Amino acid sequence: MDKALAQLPWGAPVNFLGLPEAEIAYDRAAVVILPVPYEATVSYMGGTRFGPRRILEASRYIELYDHELDSEPHSVGVHTLPELMLSGAGPAEALAELRQAHDALLAANKFVIMLGGEHSISAPPIQAHVARLGAKRPLSVLQLDAHGDLRPEYEGTPYSHACVMYRVHQDVNLVPVGIRAITVEERQLMRERRIPTIFAHELDQGEGWIDRAVDALGEDVYITIDIDFFDPALVPATGTPEPGGGEWYPALRLLERVFAHRNVVGVDVVELAPIPGFVAPDFLAAKLVYKLIAYYQRAHAAKPERRR
Amino acid sequence: MDKALAQLPWGAPVNFLGLPEAEIAYDRAAVVILPVPYEATVSYMGGTRFGPRRILEASRYIELYDHELDSEPHSVGVHTLPELMLSGAGPAEALAELRQAHDALLAANKFVIMLGGEHSISAPPIQAHVARLGAKRPLSVLQLDAHGDLRPEYEGTPYSHACVMYRVHQDVNLVPVGIRAITVEERQLMRERRIPTIFAHELDQGEGWIDRAVDALGEDVYITIDIDFFDPALVPATGTPEPGGGEWYPALRLLERVFAHRNVVGVDVVELAPIPGFVAPDFLAAKLVYKLIAYYQRAHAAKPERRR
Amino acid sequence: MDKALAQLPWGAPVNFLGLPEAEIAYDRAAVVILPVPYEATVSYMGGTRFGPRRILEASRYIELYDHELDSEPHSVGVHTLPELMLSGAGPAEALAELRQAHDALLAANKFVIMLGGEHSISAPPIQAHVARLGAKRPLSVLQLDAHGDLRPEYEGTPYSHACVMYRVHQDVNLVPVGIRAITVEERQLMRERRIPTIFAHELDQGEGWIDRAVDALGEDVYITIDIDFFDPALVPATGTPEPGGGEWYPALRLLERVFAHRNVVGVDVVELAPIPGFVAPDFLAAKLVYKLIAYYQRAHAAKPERRR
Amino acid sequence: MDKALAQLPWGAPVNFLGLPEAEIAYDRAAVVILPVPYEATVSYMGGTRFGPRRILEASRYIELYDHELDSEPHSVGVHTLPELMLSGAGPAEALAELRQAHDALLAANKFVIMLGGEHSISAPPIQAHVARLGAKRPLSVLQLDAHGDLRPEYEGTPYSHACVMYRVHQDVNLVPVGIRAITVEERQLMRERRIPTIFAHELDQGEGWIDRAVDALGEDVYITIDIDFFDPALVPATGTPEPGGGEWYPALRLLERVFAHRNVVGVDVVELAPIPGFVAPDFLAAKLVYKLIAYYQRAHAAKPERRR
Amino acid sequence: MDKALAQLPWGAPVNFLGLPEAEIAYDRAAVVILPVPYEATVSYMGGTRFGPRRILEASRYIELYDHELDSEPHSVGVHTLPELMLSGAGPAEALAELRQAHDALLAANKFVIMLGGEHSISAPPIQAHVARLGAKRPLSVLQLDAHGDLRPEYEGTPYSHACVMYRVHQDVNLVPVGIRAITVEERQLMRERRIPTIFAHELDQGEGWIDRAVDALGEDVYITIDIDFFDPALVPATGTPEPGGGEWYPALRLLERVFAHRNVVGVDVVELAPIPGFVAPDFLAAKLVYKLIAYYQRAHAAKPERRR
Amino acid sequence: MDKALAQLPWGAPVNFLGLPEAEIAYDRAAVVILPVPYEATVSYMGGTRFGPRRILEASRYIELYDHELDSEPHSVGVHTLPELMLSGAGPAEALAELRQAHDALLAANKFVIMLGGEHSISAPPIQAHVARLGAKRPLSVLQLDAHGDLRPEYEGTPYSHACVMYRVHQDVNLVPVGIRAITVEERQLMRERRIPTIFAHELDQGEGWIDRAVDALGEDVYITIDIDFFDPALVPATGTPEPGGGEWYPALRLLERVFAHRNVVGVDVVELAPIPGFVAPDFLAAKLVYKLIAYYQRAHAAKPERRR
Repeated sequence: MDKALAQLPWGAPVNFLGLPEAEIAYDRAAVVILPVPYEATVSYMGGTRFGPRRILEASRYIELYDHELDSEPHSVGVHTLPELMLSGAGPAEALAELRQAHDALLAANKFVIMLGGEHSISAPPIQAHVARLGAKRPLSVLQLDAHGDLRPEYEGTPYSHACVMYRVHQDVNLVPVGIRAITVEERQLMRERRIPTIFAHELDQGEGWIDRAVDALGEDVYITIDIDFFDPALVPATGTPEPGGGEWYPALRLLERVFAHRNVVGVDVVELAPIPGFVAPDFLAAKLVYKLIAYYQRAHAAKPERRR
Repeated sequence: MDKALAQLPWGAPVNFLGLPEAEIAYDRAAVVILPVPYEATVSYMGGTRFGPRRILEASRYIELYDHELDSEPHSVGVHTLPELMLSGAGPAEALAELRQAHDALLAANKFVIMLGGEHSISAPPIQAHVARLGAKRPLSVLQLDAHGDLRPEYEGTPYSHACVMYRVHQDVNLVPVGIRAITVEERQLMRERRIPTIFAHELDQGEGWIDRAVDALGEDVYITIDIDFFDPALVPATGTPEPGGGEWYPALRLLERVFAHRNVVGVDVVELAPIPGFVAPDFLAAKLVYKLIAYYQRAHAAKPERRR
Repeated sequence: MDKALAQLPWGAPVNFLGLPEAEIAYDRAAVVILPVPYEATVSYMGGTRFGPRRILEASRYIELYDHELDSEPHSVGVHTLPELMLSGAGPAEALAELRQAHDALLAANKFVIMLGGEHSISAPPIQAHVARLGAKRPLSVLQLDAHGDLRPEYEGTPYSHACVMYRVHQDVNLVPVGIRAITVEERQLMRERRIPTIFAHELDQGEGWIDRAVDALGEDVYITIDIDFFDPALVPATGTPEPGGGEWYPALRLLERVFAHRNVVGVDVVELAPIPGFVAPDFLAAKLVYKLIAYYQRAHAAKPERRR
Repeated sequence: MDKALAQLPWGAPVNFLGLPEAEIAYDRAAVVILPVPYEATVSYMGGTRFGPRRILEASRYIELYDHELDSEPHSVGVHTLPELMLSGAGPAEALAELRQAHDALLAANKFVIMLGGEHSISAPPIQAHVARLGAKRPLSVLQLDAHGDLRPEYEGTPYSHACVMYRVHQDVNLVPVGIRAITVEERQLMRERRIPTIFAHELDQGEGWIDRAVDALGEDVYITIDIDFFDPALVPATGTPEPGGGEWYPALRLLERVFAHRNVVGVDVVELAPIPGFVAPDFLAAKLVYKLIAYYQRAHAAKPERRR
Repeated sequence: MDKALAQLPWGAPVNFLGLPEAEIAYDRAAVVILPVPYEATVSYMGGTRFGPRRILEASRYIELYDHELDSEPHSVGVHTLPELMLSGAGPAEALAELRQAHDALLAANKFVIMLGGEHSISAPPIQAHVARLGAKRPLSVLQLDAHGDLRPEYEGTPYSHACVMYRVHQDVNLVPVGIRAITVEERQLMRERRIPTIFAHELDQGEGWIDRAVDALGEDVYITIDIDFFDPALVPATGTPEPGGGEWYPALRLLERVFAHRNVVGVDVVELAPIPGFVAPDFLAAKLVYKLIAYYQRAHAAKPERRR
Repeated sequence: MDKALAQLPWGAPVNFLGLPEAEIAYDRAAVVILPVPYEATVSYMGGTRFGPRRILEASRYIELYDHELDSEPHSVGVHTLPELMLSGAGPAEALAELRQAHDALLAANKFVIMLGGEHSISAPPIQAHVARLGAKRPLSVLQLDAHGDLRPEYEGTPYSHACVMYRVHQDVNLVPVGIRAITVEERQLMRERRIPTIFAHELDQGEGWIDRAVDALGEDVYITIDIDFFDPALVPATGTPEPGGGEWYPALRLLERVFAHRNVVGVDVVELAPIPGFVAPDFLAAKLVYKLIAYYQRAHAAKPERRR
């Protein structure tokens, strides 16, 4: 493109935050955004495959400066990958591909923020981290979610979004927060396995639950955020909106503390099912992702030895 | 249907909670869901006649287990009637038909949960209960609502949704909660009749109002829930959404206590006007109805003599 | 339900046309509606799993009398099955279940009208008919569609909706009509296999194409109607709407003639992806299904020996 | 308002066409727009009470010049009345009020264009014209409609929108055009009463039907246009959209000829049920109304003696 | 209009609150509503030009009685002007016209409530008040907003909605409340100019911020309310919804106190970008405006000498 | 990105047709897509600034093979520029920037397809071509449009979308097609200047108009397609939808012939105002653009000397 063209006011590129290409080279980026528009086992309202796209679009309107932390989190380096189009051959094949992607990204030492898509995609990154950390460093999983997702099988498959935590719960230290819809069997499993669950109605009783959640986590933590954790007033755009969910600032306080006091190894934000013409939930998800980057940046600025 | 067909994975039937036909026989059901898609005197946004249908649809995605109460409320027996299509000949005729339905259901000793439809349909069940209880047992009506609905007449008729509480207020002990839109005349009536009204802005000042509401109720209580009681952030899907409304958990605490300490004889949930493609309010209404069933079940498990 | 209740004006049941239960016993029904809300390999806009539900809902507002044929097609007996919830274990498993359903229904001598759901579900019924008819009676497939669906594989699987006709094309006599979006490879396959394709732009040049289509069909015909065959002005509610599609009356004239002059063994209507709050396409699909029943009825009234 | 204010660029007033107040004085207006947002007996999708409002809003964006006729139809004088809020006491009361309105307007020698609202509102103006013309001048009614509306009763009332033509058919010469959904009984009535019906599928066979329709009309004609006459591709925004409807230019040709060759005494356009965010049908209805005014103007310019 | 017509039940006129014409004469009105549907420099979702229209429409369904204040605020006299259609020649020309409008209205001693439209329209009224008050009476501006709007230039122009507060900040005492999205440069400006900003996350920590905000204001106050101040749960209908915003009752308490303790000279409510079919935010905005009128009325009833 | 990552199935890039980066280098591309999301002077429904984005998104689902022409038009080389964000300083500044862009692109010998945005953006490319061709080669402009756009000024500016053709009509040979909404003054101008206008109702009378349009064009032709040319049944997604518009195949036949028999120097497609959740019009616009590329390719394959 010649000079006369180049100097015109072109719009921001389509990546997380709309950053200039020069700033976001893969090699120098500490953070990698991995969009996974996978939607195979559906809940009531569908459309989670549009989630990553709409989060990226909204992210371009987010201010780069974080006034709460007085920082510029994007300076950590944020590279956005293209959408990963998982195989249509069935969930086993699809999730195997996703595992391969995470293995490669972790080998390259990236901090991956995966955008879903349905919740079943959280299993491969968790399993990749478990494998990577090895038996001596047990992984904790902080699950922000309305549903338990602890069924052994759902609709004829163990790969359903309703089963994702069951698939990993024996290999990790699971800490579910915001739960408000489970089966009898899930409740029993929680009791038997002593899963330190924080139910949604407990969030309505002061903020003591934040300490409890942080305390229940080990040193290494993966965070999976099913966007239906939030109250449907904030995020109606999800498959099965359950009343009585989490609020914005308390959630941030929890996340800020986890990043400050634990080693967060990866994150995902899933189950946004955008509503056409109703963008507020997309903005919330995008800003949430940027807050995660901000907390990540601060943690690694303060404790640079941590990242590895 | 032959065996090869029968063993295939068929979807849940269209009834409240999507329960198997075998479980919900009318004769054995303690609870009966009565959908009344009646919409004749309209407010700003219409569509309340789609309310029952959408509540039923959302209800099929609700977990049958209630983890707050550690119970399975559906085991009380929940039968869903077809939609009752009230006469188009005028409100007097329509409401007379509805009275007939309630008389029959009460005679069969059913606990009726009526789903509207516009608020004017609450008068017939209230009048049926007044008649049934007789003069010695005055009925209390707990009205969760944004509007007073205490006008003698509106748009040329005393049968409007804006008049429903006026029509019954002399025969019952009325306790309105969450009110935030009334006329001068309604305010005056509240004062003259000493109607113990709890205004919406009082809900923002601690939870003392819950005690006051429960205390104002007599032994026998009918609960009518105009869904616009809730804040429009939770339920934008109603005819005239008024800012500053009720929240989810405080409302549940009120209802739980009323069921625990009073004899609730009937309930309705009205004025949901579903927004196409925006299902969160439908889910809230469906879960609210299931919570009512849960509280009902617990009340009658504890005090089995009560039901009659 | 007692008599006082029974005589009230209850709404129509949720089945195709909203027919009274008494009229639609499975055993006596010649026609069976099979709703298959299967959606696994997605195109641009999703939501085909809501297609069957919305067709049924719209069908309840269709007049039972057909004034063009001066007949009452429902009198043939129309039974609506519940939704068939195919396995989430992967497309191979799901489609095997669907084949089982068709085998059972054909064994019971039913004329099946399947409602999708994505187009990949058409393969099992076609294969079931091929098996049933045997080698001596080759099946013709009349495909009304915007897309060729003749790819050997798509998004990592041969079971995609984009491959459905490839999967069966060697076993049947395929007659595609309304095609307006294909790959080079599909075009080549059409030429090599001499598939008598009628492209969409040919529909804009008089109605000679109707004769050509009918002539290209053998005696036994399965009809699969991808709703995106129709012009997006009529049916914008589909995954990948392609401009320049088919019109209503010419399509009816084609279908009427095929039923009159061939032995139609089964039908499906797929790929309706309903748009919330925009019901016209749902009505078109519902009326189309009823027209198919009307033509079926007339064909079997005239030639009663045919049905077997 | 002082001069500095007055000279600012204020938006057009809210009336049909957004005409300046000075131009539209009631006394000098030949044409009166009467908005009747009445919606009591509902069909599938509701919202006809928003029809008049949305037609007025769209009308403000219509060019005042008609290039087909090379005229400025608004110069005939077009006064827009406020919305007439019919009684909620029941259909009999409501329609009596509406009759009173028409009697007053006809006494004032106005040409009334009524905007609905549901179709049941067409009976009062027709009856007013029948009364006014007297026994010697039989009124013809040109009904553009998808449905027969010839049921004696529907949903418990003879005042339903589905009955409006039955209510008047014995007093007028009824000419239905575009019909494509009727009951057996309506078909029989059409035959018995020899109602010269032009069915929708006949509109697909050349334009001979226009002559037949005009020929079937007597000298004095009332035109009622149920907007569902038009194909749902053009007007999806109606209660029960039926595929296979009328097109724009042929409809204009019919109306132009009726105005040119008959004495049109009144008109209504009803059953527009606007879809939020989808304005094309509103524009079609608004332009249709303006075309009616254009034809009216030309008829009365040419034959000024006619108007009385 | 003759008597028979006049006595019919006509709908309310299209003005703020739908007041009878007789009550709202411009000359006697203390309050003037000025709708300015200006939208030129756009944010993510557009549509702010529909804001005024939808606020007016919703306002017609608001109760005239204010039960919190036990008053009838409309009795102060509320005149609604037509929409002011600002020049399309560019922002400088457009805002100059708007300044002219405010000068004329202030000269007529009106209390102006301007409805936007995009936020850039707030500069002209603020500048008009600064000019009017003169150097001895410095104007304070209470800005309720999610964004700082303190950029010197945005998208090539200093007239953007993102610059509106920068344009006036040197001439007034600016008090921003609810801010949660700013640039580094805006943060620096706030520090350098010691702008007493109350950030949104501070609103989540008790109500001490209300005192701080009121204390920071001088005697004469202009209030500009960017509707995105409110949490997107309450108002998703805005250009760039930012999570973590203000709530209804605390905002009212702030506004009530400002009116009670300061001399409020003018108000605007801007940036509502209505979502089709989703009216709750329109109602919130309309009720907010009426609350402002209520506080204005009480302030001037108590201190009648103030108004000048 | 390492090899393990690179071999995963990543989604298509965000450019017109979703072509691989390797194929679309600017330098080798004959065709350049220039998205101009400019929306300043608004019509009824807004949102034209989302037009380019939605056309690009839809284009990724279009088949690359054109079966009507049996060609692969993308092989001509199609480069998509980022969105050009024109200045917010006013229309004069914005359009000057746009002129600069076109000058640079024409200097680079690109065939530019501009995607709007509002229609006012067509003037700069037309003026650039007039300048480039010089006085001896007069430019013809084929305008497909519902509106004349021949006003000297609109809403205080000569730069409005309603004026765009007036601004250029003296410098070019203007051929408007599909016109159906004009003012008296526009009609008069058409007559005085003998502008060979083809009105929309003429499109309903056989296809003779195609010859007339082609014949009226000189050798060098710029084509501007206001998407509201098409019937609102096909494209409801535009600012002011006018009934009675153009159809798909006839429009293609016109365009095919113009490319075959004239030297088309540039094209734009403007005024698509996407409706959230309703994508059919986006697909039509995207396919239309691809058809233009197909016709361009064929013209330049046959007559390679032409391009210069």
